[in-house]
Amino acid sequence: MQEWDGLDSEADAFRDECGVFGIYGRQDAAPIVTLGLHALQHRGQEAAGIVSFDGAQFHVERHIGLIGDTFTKPSVMDRLPGHRAIGHTRYSTTGESSLRNVQPLFAELADGGFAVAHNGNITNAMTIQRVLQKRGAIISSTSDTEALLHLVATSEKTNFNDRFVDAVRQLEGAFSLVALSSKKMIGCRDPLGIRPLVLGDLDGSYILASESCALDIIGARYVRDIKPGEMVVITERGIQSHFPFDSVDSRFCIFEYVYFARPDSVIEGRDVYAIRKNIGVELAREEAIEADMVVPVPDSGTPAAIGYAQEANLPFELGIIRNHYVGRTFIQPGDSIRHMGVKLKHNANRRTIEGKRVVLVDDSIVRGTTSQKIVQMVRDAGAKEVHMRIASPPTRASCFYGVDTPETAKLLASRMSVEEMADFIRVDSLAFLSTDGLYRAVGEEGRHDDKPQFCDACFTREYPTPLTDLVGADNVRRLSVLSSKG
Amino acid sequence: MQEWDGLDSEADAFRDECGVFGIYGRQDAAPIVTLGLHALQHRGQEAAGIVSFDGAQFHVERHIGLIGDTFTKPSVMDRLPGHRAIGHTRYSTTGESSLRNVQPLFAELADGGFAVAHNGNITNAMTIQRVLQKRGAIISSTSDTEALLHLVATSEKTNFNDRFVDAVRQLEGAFSLVALSSKKMIGCRDPLGIRPLVLGDLDGSYILASESCALDIIGARYVRDIKPGEMVVITERGIQSHFPFDSVDSRFCIFEYVYFARPDSVIEGRDVYAIRKNIGVELAREEAIEADMVVPVPDSGTPAAIGYAQEANLPFELGIIRNHYVGRTFIQPGDSIRHMGVKLKHNANRRTIEGKRVVLVDDSIVRGTTSQKIVQMVRDAGAKEVHMRIASPPTRASCFYGVDTPETAKLLASRMSVEEMADFIRVDSLAFLSTDGLYRAVGEEGRHDDKPQFCDACFTREYPTPLTDLVGADNVRRLSVLSSKG
Amino acid sequence: MQEWDGLDSEADAFRDECGVFGIYGRQDAAPIVTLGLHALQHRGQEAAGIVSFDGAQFHVERHIGLIGDTFTKPSVMDRLPGHRAIGHTRYSTTGESSLRNVQPLFAELADGGFAVAHNGNITNAMTIQRVLQKRGAIISSTSDTEALLHLVATSEKTNFNDRFVDAVRQLEGAFSLVALSSKKMIGCRDPLGIRPLVLGDLDGSYILASESCALDIIGARYVRDIKPGEMVVITERGIQSHFPFDSVDSRFCIFEYVYFARPDSVIEGRDVYAIRKNIGVELAREEAIEADMVVPVPDSGTPAAIGYAQEANLPFELGIIRNHYVGRTFIQPGDSIRHMGVKLKHNANRRTIEGKRVVLVDDSIVRGTTSQKIVQMVRDAGAKEVHMRIASPPTRASCFYGVDTPETAKLLASRMSVEEMADFIRVDSLAFLSTDGLYRAVGEEGRHDDKPQFCDACFTREYPTPLTDLVGADNVRRLSVLSSKG
Amino acid sequence: MQEWDGLDSEADAFRDECGVFGIYGRQDAAPIVTLGLHALQHRGQEAAGIVSFDGAQFHVERHIGLIGDTFTKPSVMDRLPGHRAIGHTRYSTTGESSLRNVQPLFAELADGGFAVAHNGNITNAMTIQRVLQKRGAIISSTSDTEALLHLVATSEKTNFNDRFVDAVRQLEGAFSLVALSSKKMIGCRDPLGIRPLVLGDLDGSYILASESCALDIIGARYVRDIKPGEMVVITERGIQSHFPFDSVDSRFCIFEYVYFARPDSVIEGRDVYAIRKNIGVELAREEAIEADMVVPVPDSGTPAAIGYAQEANLPFELGIIRNHYVGRTFIQPGDSIRHMGVKLKHNANRRTIEGKRVVLVDDSIVRGTTSQKIVQMVRDAGAKEVHMRIASPPTRASCFYGVDTPETAKLLASRMSVEEMADFIRVDSLAFLSTDGLYRAVGEEGRHDDKPQFCDACFTREYPTPLTDLVGADNVRRLSVLSSKG
Repeated sequence: MQEWDGLDSEADAFRDECGVFGIYGRQDAAPIVTLGLHALQHRGQEAAGIVSFDGAQFHVERHIGLIGDTFTKPSVMDRLPGHRAIGHTRYSTTGESSLRNVQPLFAELADGGFAVAHNGNITNAMTIQRVLQKRGAIISSTSDTEALLHLVATSEKTNFNDRFVDAVRQLEGAFSLVALSSKKMIGCRDPLGIRPLVLGDLDGSYILASESCALDIIGARYVRDIKPGEMVVITERGIQSHFPFDSVDSRFCIFEYVYFARPDSVIEGRDVYAIRKNIGVELAREEAIEADMVVPVPDSGTPAAIGYAQEANLPFELGIIRNHYVGRTFIQPGDSIRHMGVKLKHNANRRTIEGKRVVLVDDSIVRGTTSQKIVQMVRDAGAKEVHMRIASPPTRASCFYGVDTPETAKLLASRMSVEEMADFIRVDSLAFLSTDGLYRAVGEEGRHDDKPQFCDACFTREYPTPLTDLVGADNVRRLSVLSSKG
Repeated sequence: MQEWDGLDSEADAFRDECGVFGIYGRQDAAPIVTLGLHALQHRGQEAAGIVSFDGAQFHVERHIGLIGDTFTKPSVMDRLPGHRAIGHTRYSTTGESSLRNVQPLFAELADGGFAVAHNGNITNAMTIQRVLQKRGAIISSTSDTEALLHLVATSEKTNFNDRFVDAVRQLEGAFSLVALSSKKMIGCRDPLGIRPLVLGDLDGSYILASESCALDIIGARYVRDIKPGEMVVITERGIQSHFPFDSVDSRFCIFEYVYFARPDSVIEGRDVYAIRKNIGVELAREEAIEADMVVPVPDSGTPAAIGYAQEANLPFELGIIRNHYVGRTFIQPGDSIRHMGVKLKHNANRRTIEGKRVVLVDDSIVRGTTSQKIVQMVRDAGAKEVHMRIASPPTRASCFYGVDTPETAKLLASRMSVEEMADFIRVDSLAFLSTDGLYRAVGEEGRHDDKPQFCDACFTREYPTPLTDLVGADNVRRLSVLSSKG
Repeated sequence: MQEWDGLDSEADAFRDECGVFGIYGRQDAAPIVTLGLHALQHRGQEAAGIVSFDGAQFHVERHIGLIGDTFTKPSVMDRLPGHRAIGHTRYSTTGESSLRNVQPLFAELADGGFAVAHNGNITNAMTIQRVLQKRGAIISSTSDTEALLHLVATSEKTNFNDRFVDAVRQLEGAFSLVALSSKKMIGCRDPLGIRPLVLGDLDGSYILASESCALDIIGARYVRDIKPGEMVVITERGIQSHFPFDSVDSRFCIFEYVYFARPDSVIEGRDVYAIRKNIGVELAREEAIEADMVVPVPDSGTPAAIGYAQEANLPFELGIIRNHYVGRTFIQPGDSIRHMGVKLKHNANRRTIEGKRVVLVDDSIVRGTTSQKIVQMVRDAGAKEVHMRIASPPTRASCFYGVDTPETAKLLASRMSVEEMADFIRVDSLAFLSTDGLYRAVGEEGRHDDKPQFCDACFTREYPTPLTDLVGADNVRRLSVLSSKG
Repeated sequence: MQEWDGLDSEADAFRDECGVFGIYGRQDAAPIVTLGLHALQHRGQEAAGIVSFDGAQFHVERHIGLIGDTFTKPSVMDRLPGHRAIGHTRYSTTGESSLRNVQPLFAELADGGFAVAHNGNITNAMTIQRVLQKRGAIISSTSDTEALLHLVATSEKTNFNDRFVDAVRQLEGAFSLVALSSKKMIGCRDPLGIRPLVLGDLDGSYILASESCALDIIGARYVRDIKPGEMVVITERGIQSHFPFDSVDSRFCIFEYVYFARPDSVIEGRDVYAIRKNIGVELAREEAIEADMVVPVPDSGTPAAIGYAQEANLPFELGIIRNHYVGRTFIQPGDSIRHMGVKLKHNANRRTIEGKRVVLVDDSIVRGTTSQKIVQMVRDAGAKEVHMRIASPPTRASCFYGVDTPETAKLLASRMSVEEMADFIRVDSLAFLSTDGLYRAVGEEGRHDDKPQFCDACFTREYPTPLTDLVGADNVRRLSVLSSKG
């Protein structure tokens, strides 16, 4: 699988994992959030927003584009004064209407302003919104997160914490939330803890962030992960922990370890880079092959390739070079220019791989079209054999928890056997990591099939929550529209 | 040394290597040039231009920004019709005045239009322009390349080829040129061949490009390098080769192999990636040290680190993670946020390096400030020992051949011994590759000091051409202004 | 009084009269709305919006700037397909948050999309919104018009017409509304008919517009004015008229005749240009003075000046020339450049007025600072005497019905007698039209003080509706903020 | 004739009269030039430039758009420091290449910087440039003004004044120039004085400007007109006058009085507004008609209409209302919308003209299409009779002196008699002012046909200079391209 970028209209990649960040009680809160979001940019590159509170007023900025291009102007920072701020980075579509979907969402409620940033996807948002609309609520975005705003606004509880709890208890799906009111900052993870959320400390100021790498950039200390089902309330008097949901076993998204999280993050106490190398090691054990070198599909396949090479005792080589200067829509210069899409980002290193038996290591296969082009490029450059090793089990099902995956029917592994897939992408051999192998790489003994330790629905089709908005096959598309907003 | 980006006002990096690309006799010439320039984006990221010729008229587009952002709109391509086009990618400064410096330069001469794109730096351009101005020439850019335009325009020869030869013979310094007239496309390298230029073929259409990686992206075939001192003239009847200069031994820039060129390029028949790995091997042989792992400063130190690790039989680890989403000026959020500049791009992978003896491999040290910050970051992440190994000899002198280096006095190696530098960047040990080691990595037995095979002035201060514009110490600054235009 | 423009931070003018336009059942609905709004540009120059319905979906475009600059691009029109569309032109402030205030407002209600454009001001909007917020409504703009949206959404009626009636019956103040649902277009004027709204016909398609000049531009036929308190419902089956409010005597804004409306409009059957000339005639009768010429303050004083000159039998002369190319903030080039602000738009025609006794005719005096500068300019150009004649009574009170007036305390006439005002602006004589004179100019015999025929609160302080949002003196500011939204 | 605007692709108007302004020896020179250019905006609305000199360096800013939009930002002013500056306002075409044509042109010559701004057109510029190109000059704009730059640069004189004189003596055509070097500001008019140029004084600082209205805006004093054939040199020691050309009788452009100049300007001692009213008086005397009212085609026909109405003793009425908010390209909403182009700017005031016999007064007829549409609009509004009176003789020939006129063949009067024109525009009667009448209006007894006092070539086809660049009929187009640059 190739990483996301602005190129593919029919994207052959997973995306739409959002990033959230908040800080409470620190001068220059907005610049710090900007840095935090920059470190979380891999979780969403198309738009971002920050809401700050200066003790009297809330300030909102939303921009389409990379943090480093849109939020780094002094004039933007000047419009975000205050000692508290939360931010969000995400994907979005083009046009005027999209800006209203950029988070954090903000509303003036009867008892004051309220902002919320969300990573995940609420699987009963549509159902909730239909009920709300019938009661006269005006839905002004197409974001699933807006349901939360209305639930808080219409809650009959009088105390703010109670209203928030009242609201999140009605939500299904995955949600790691950071919210800001005039008095407090709240962090909350769904009972299964599908998406990550960590607590940090910068000289006494509390921080909430999707990943620990966002703490590193500002020199903050990693304190701990927010627990599945936990809600922390941060005020001037400190931090309080609540557990407003019924207790269930957690199901963290295992694909965060494979692909989404940054390799320098530590999640749930686990070292992401080490897990990815372990994945390579497991893969080499399960699916060894005689070859001359191990070549990663950069950059997402690189750590697994290093692990594979070490375990298989093969040289690790940069047989594919990545061009990081990727821009917007390129013009197709005519039919004779083959495989251009993939070449905008990758080029085979001909002299290195010519005449060699190459083990290509990639993190996953989505539609298969990118893999096909990369294999062809490697063959055109003279590789004698191409063996593809995938750092995860076959992805057979859409994610409804905040990742923008193609419909299930478009996933190559949903309609082909491994052998057919090997033919389709034209490799000499193809192998995926087993589910147990993946669990081992993460540090488990294996998957407990009766009670899986992680959410692995994209591999196993076992969704850990109800999919209320999903009723009948023809709703899949609408659902996937909905699912792409978190 | 860290790679270039838009961040540093006092850049701690080398830059200003330009890239050129041209194609003759092919529909959709401009989209192909766009792709070629995209593949050469690493040679200059701040501005680009394309000139096309449609059989009757020349069309010029110049834009500030990345190729992928500025040249990929259909409207831009529509304004560049024709079967021939040349392009250029470069650095530039801000403001209205800068656009006129973006190449290709173009002028309507008495016998028709003439466009030229230049990689290198003409070291007597100022001197030539002063003479031209006295004769009444109007200099409309601050580019050294404009001297060539005027020399062609005022040549007393009648034939176009002769006028071109007349002009280039008056130039000193480094120049790899691609020029376009209404009849022909010309490629030309200076007698020493300081900068690269290759010839390619796309189904019978000739291509000129700075590096072979620009041929790969469009599926073109690498034919050969243009030879030092060679001028090729491409017309509808084919290609002709001329050697208009006195014959001298060539002096290709050895730093292209260390840093500038893309690792998937082949230059002068040599495989850049293999050379960089060789550099790591030589470095491991010359400067071995007991350690637990080899960590590259990504991405420029990566191939040498792989070579070092293989030779030293140490694990190669991604101990530093790079964030590729780098934007414009970031706000400094206050003093307590240390080393932020470097953290926008790099983060130490704490769990990987904690308690370990780390060999850091980087390509060079310019001012030393970035190295200092990276070492500190690695130490803060818990490394037990930090040993820095540099994939080139100490850079002691400015380049006047098309690379924007700081003044000599600001180069750390120009005023410190290796021991002092080790103290300055606070490493446990520091070592550079020897000059002979570098020559061995490139495939030579060593440096022929009486007759060096390459331009290595930045290491040795032995400049292979006169520096005519440079008269007395106080002119260095003016010269360096001049030198930054190529 | 001078006309509005982008120059004055402390504007010495009335503004914020909005314009609305809608068409039902005609191909190219959006381009027609664009033209209609262009003809209504004098009612609001800073932002505009159009909502179209294509039979299946609503399309929304909102832009900051003049219609002719923002809505005339083919790409914008292409995004507004459909046979029905409504539009709005208005003032707005800068920044991201303002775009959400640009009308038409739009929401997806439980039974379909609903868009509304409003001219006027709802004087109990704040009170309504506070109630709505307490019930959990999320207010997403700072526009008074949003109250209507929520009232429709939360109405307990089941039929759409009934919901709309239910909502507008709760509104106080001035409102001329054009609304669009998936089935119908609705036009509605408040019971007093404070703001104008006319019905037009273009080859069988119904049009609603603020003024008849917007019908002329597209060659549509003026049918009639929508009556005060009338609600017309336009569907595919034709037009239906309803009168949902208790019947009261109408109170149209008399200042529309003096200043807001375009002179080529016909409002409530009256010819605006003729009324303005009548005003000049009445002024000449009431306040004759010996003089050499009559000079208008262009362009708003011109028709009254023509009437004055004809009645007084004095030459009408362009003694002040207006520069229509007015841009944004000008830099003040130092103290010696006096009265620059006014000179950006006006210049005295020295040769014409030198040594002459001049009657200056202007439409009104707001703060007086502009009048002061114009008088000084005319004196500097050599006028022997300057007599100011104002085409309306003294404006003593703020408008709360959709016009952005300064607070009452800043109106010159609220704190000075006519004599003091003459001193302040330094004229030889100053006279205003009497209230009865104004009523005569409009065609009445005079004002019926017990039952005034028009809203003339800005002259008389007699507001014809409750000002519910206005409680106590300290609320004036908040109210005036609110009042500036319509 | 209708005034210029951005609407007409096939413009039915004269345009391309440029405006120039310079000030020497005054703090904030650039802001003052900005104001001066703003007052000259009617002479060119599409682009502008300013060059300032700060004692050491020249600073150049060029922008597409209105002065008030592009030059009023503090950042732009900050980039133009210095006590001397010159500016230019003009038309330009779209695209990157056009910016290089925006004046002032600037070049670093051997003896220092040199900037020049030009109003007029050099009728042998192409011929000069061809000679220069053959000598090797590189022409970097398509502006006729660049010829002057090269002539100064290549002059063999040693003294700067002599070089300037050497250059201007080679020019043919119309030129009112303002130039700036590091030592002096120069003003120069061609020997015939075809275009205006005045000298002003602001507290001791010298000013050069196209029209006196540009002095008024900054409170400067009008000193005198620069004389035809005069060159003034302004230095720190004061002003010197030279007459470098052979003495000839002057031929000022009479159409400046009819249309181009602002009515509040005084040119060659004559009051433009008074002349325009005189024109109306002469027209009423020559071409009286029984009618009910006089209606100007606003704004250019207004002063003549006032004069006509006073002389004919008819009421002057605003029977056509002008919308000043004119934007860019409007979408045509289909065939049924008739005469839209003209309606974007004008609307007939139906109630005023219905059933009336109307005398329409306009300044000129170019192609006739606009007149046709206006007449139709007036008829559609119910006028009983429409009599068109034109405030100038029929325009039968293109201008080659700085006005962008259609080719002669496209001028209605070049191919039709007055009767045919009356039929074409569908009026009940049509009459033009006689040439002698025009001369009388300007203050002469009549035209001296043997030795005309003004340039009136557009009426008489008698061009007062050679048209060297114009050779044969097929060159007319190229010439008209050339002629549109001044």
